[in-house]
Amino acid sequence: MADEWANSSPGGSDLHLDLSGPGGVRASLIRALRDAVRSGRLAPGTRLPPSRSLATDLGLARNTVADAYGELVAEGWLTARQGSGTRVAERAAQRTTPPRSRPTARPAPAPRTPPRRPNHGPNSLYAGSPDLSSFPRAAWLAAARRAMATAPNEAFGYGDPLGRIELRRALADYLARARGVRADPERIVVCAGFIQGLSLLSRVLRRNGARRLAVESYGLDFHRDLITAEGLRTTPLTVDHHGASTSMLSGRKDLSAVLLTPAHQFPTGVPLHPDRRAAAVDWARSTGGLILEDDYDGEFRYDRQPVGALQGLDPERVAYLGTASKSLAPGLRLAWTVLPAPLVEQVAAAKSAGERHPGVLDQLTLAEFITSGAYDGHLRAMRLRYRRRRDRLVAVLAERVPTVRVSGIAAGLHAVLRLPPGTEREAVRGAEWLGLAVQGLDHFRYPYPEEAGAGAIRPQAAHAIHSVQAVPDIPDGLVIGYGTPAEHAFAGTLETLCEVLQAIV
Amino acid sequence: MADEWANSSPGGSDLHLDLSGPGGVRASLIRALRDAVRSGRLAPGTRLPPSRSLATDLGLARNTVADAYGELVAEGWLTARQGSGTRVAERAAQRTTPPRSRPTARPAPAPRTPPRRPNHGPNSLYAGSPDLSSFPRAAWLAAARRAMATAPNEAFGYGDPLGRIELRRALADYLARARGVRADPERIVVCAGFIQGLSLLSRVLRRNGARRLAVESYGLDFHRDLITAEGLRTTPLTVDHHGASTSMLSGRKDLSAVLLTPAHQFPTGVPLHPDRRAAAVDWARSTGGLILEDDYDGEFRYDRQPVGALQGLDPERVAYLGTASKSLAPGLRLAWTVLPAPLVEQVAAAKSAGERHPGVLDQLTLAEFITSGAYDGHLRAMRLRYRRRRDRLVAVLAERVPTVRVSGIAAGLHAVLRLPPGTEREAVRGAEWLGLAVQGLDHFRYPYPEEAGAGAIRPQAAHAIHSVQAVPDIPDGLVIGYGTPAEHAFAGTLETLCEVLQAIV
Repeated sequence: MADEWANSSPGGSDLHLDLSGPGGVRASLIRALRDAVRSGRLAPGTRLPPSRSLATDLGLARNTVADAYGELVAEGWLTARQGSGTRVAERAAQRTTPPRSRPTARPAPAPRTPPRRPNHGPNSLYAGSPDLSSFPRAAWLAAARRAMATAPNEAFGYGDPLGRIELRRALADYLARARGVRADPERIVVCAGFIQGLSLLSRVLRRNGARRLAVESYGLDFHRDLITAEGLRTTPLTVDHHGASTSMLSGRKDLSAVLLTPAHQFPTGVPLHPDRRAAAVDWARSTGGLILEDDYDGEFRYDRQPVGALQGLDPERVAYLGTASKSLAPGLRLAWTVLPAPLVEQVAAAKSAGERHPGVLDQLTLAEFITSGAYDGHLRAMRLRYRRRRDRLVAVLAERVPTVRVSGIAAGLHAVLRLPPGTEREAVRGAEWLGLAVQGLDHFRYPYPEEAGAGAIRPQAAHAIHSVQAVPDIPDGLVIGYGTPAEHAFAGTLETLCEVLQAIV
Repeated sequence: MADEWANSSPGGSDLHLDLSGPGGVRASLIRALRDAVRSGRLAPGTRLPPSRSLATDLGLARNTVADAYGELVAEGWLTARQGSGTRVAERAAQRTTPPRSRPTARPAPAPRTPPRRPNHGPNSLYAGSPDLSSFPRAAWLAAARRAMATAPNEAFGYGDPLGRIELRRALADYLARARGVRADPERIVVCAGFIQGLSLLSRVLRRNGARRLAVESYGLDFHRDLITAEGLRTTPLTVDHHGASTSMLSGRKDLSAVLLTPAHQFPTGVPLHPDRRAAAVDWARSTGGLILEDDYDGEFRYDRQPVGALQGLDPERVAYLGTASKSLAPGLRLAWTVLPAPLVEQVAAAKSAGERHPGVLDQLTLAEFITSGAYDGHLRAMRLRYRRRRDRLVAVLAERVPTVRVSGIAAGLHAVLRLPPGTEREAVRGAEWLGLAVQGLDHFRYPYPEEAGAGAIRPQAAHAIHSVQAVPDIPDGLVIGYGTPAEHAFAGTLETLCEVLQAIV
């Protein structure tokens, strides 16, 4: 068969799998296969050899190859079907039609409501904040000192709206290595937090003629508020145990973009299924739409290597958004977008007009923090800390409240506890009564307008419509931000949580 | 006469002039007199005793009292008229009508052009940048270390849109002491640079129904662009040797606000005449308008104590805007507004929606930098440095090109060189030829629409309309940013400037 891998063996002269480079052989193999697919050297539909054969060819352990295949399936580069083996996904090769850009620009209505930020006080298990007590103060200061010693004088002047080049270079390297992002420093725009990036992209989309953006049916209301503040409407995509139902995008030409959390759906905690990753890219390619990839906690995965960013599948269709708010601290107001080429200048121009980049010292310090390896070190330490907390949460609940199951993948800074139907509200109130701040899944729910009546009912007030749930397979639950408490406070919050749960189940 | 000071002698029991407090007796006397006027204890129109008499009463040197009177006249609290003595200004007592606020809010057109920032490279005398080579790196790092050591954990979280309370407290003290600003920490909003403050205020004004804002006929085009990007129109106020012609505001109810540089008009370099300060406040009170006070370089005055901020005259009518961009470095992106009470929440809400405060570490570091006295120390050092540069500029020109006069007060980081009519363009080009970046007055000129033809001619292209100048008393000139070069480069740029001027005059 012409589409067989056998015809283009990686050992052969027509396909070079370069296994050198940083990281172990597993990482090198993933990178080499990804490059081969990306460049078209491995055509869509091509069947790959069984992992055992390729392992023998390359002199690797079979598990290493199987692992690499698994990773690339998860990222959407390959597909694995019973009886059909592992093949290059049909949409993996990148086409380069430019995103549609319509010249009309109706003015956006002014935003009226400030975004609501949850309470991250000492007795809080609200999701969305890292452990603020673990901010690496000494290491950050040391990086600041080194950055200050080497910064050119011009760094202290009015800066480039894209952000400091030192930081964009460091981010490009880091994101390629850690998140599989195809990042060129010239495609990166440094932002003052994720929400500035989301606002800027919404504004640019609106100016280019966009009217409607799809979001996940579970998410943050102030993200939706920011989008609507820029004059766009939002439409929910149902979220189930495979993540957002990207099939709902199919044929929807009225949608100009979709905001997704592919690595770890917020807040339900599931990763986006590989087929759905592919479906999202297919939709974007066929309609000229844009995917906004909110990779808020992609660095934190505990059971395996993190799944690479969706952006790697098609950098011309995906605007990647990353942040230091979870990996370091929200107070830094440091985030970054990696953009399709045509959007770079537009986002930079929107940013220059009244909004600015974050302070240059923080930018230079983060650049130094990353290139010195301090960022990797901090992430390793925090990964261990959060993983231990998650393990402890799972173990303590299994012992004390065995009927409450922890759902979602072992990742990030939060988990969802599944509760018996009808008990969520009681649990939230019970926690409040004991001084523990915690939120139910319902707080994050974004119902269909028809479901919510005349569209006037906010997700927070949506209890009355539980009987017509759009997402029947997501029952009641608590969103537990186990990353939020200070280290010394974690055991206490966990104890209180157990008391709350024991009272209701 | 009932309005005579003699009836309410400062030594008497009905008027307490408290001369204690920080600073010398001169500062204390100014503060005490200002408080007396502000509180109404000294009524408008009241004639003050001759400086000699008050000096005797208080046991002070006559010059101290005369000096204090002069300061308060300059600030607009008192008036001094030949034959009428020194009196309390008619408008000095503060009335408390709230600013008008209209509920309608038509959406603003989207900004399209990024603001243009001038070239501040090594061979540049462009105005608008401090000497970036003088950023106090070591002192700043030391302050960062102290701030880091004492910051509470919660500081690293999502912050207050008003900014860190530590910084707002430090600024309130500093601004009251150094700039005569009546600043309550709860009235301060920390911004990511002046332009964020200007954008936010423009947006809030527009939402409150404003349509038109007056600006000075010489200024920065990207400031006007930011204002129009928020959906407002701008109208120029003629600038002459007394600053902006605030008499042009009189009766203009179509104007909702005016943007002024009272301490040091940018770029012509003149201070706003006391009568005009008063006229601006009168206009704001009678129409419900708002004054935006751009105090970009108020810390730098070389021939006397800086004139206090206009804001002190009526904090309910003036939004004060200050910045660290000239006093420290633009790269910090740190600025502040002191707002009339009703605007605080509106500006904070506008800021929360997609734009954010600057990074918390820079905020805490600046707070520490101010409270430790490092900021005062840095300003003293820079004042000396810039003053020497200005003196050198004046001296070298007097010797080498005596026909070119330096105009504007001894203040700030720039001066205007008056040139013979018709030579400005030649001078700019000559400098360009020698690799020196310099701008002519014309670059900053904002002509009347009728003067500029159908409104299509931009200030930069306004050379053709020189014959119908709106500001006949401002001839050709070069704006010399003597603060811009690095210390080692200043002598060289000055030498080149002399060569340019010698060739044309």
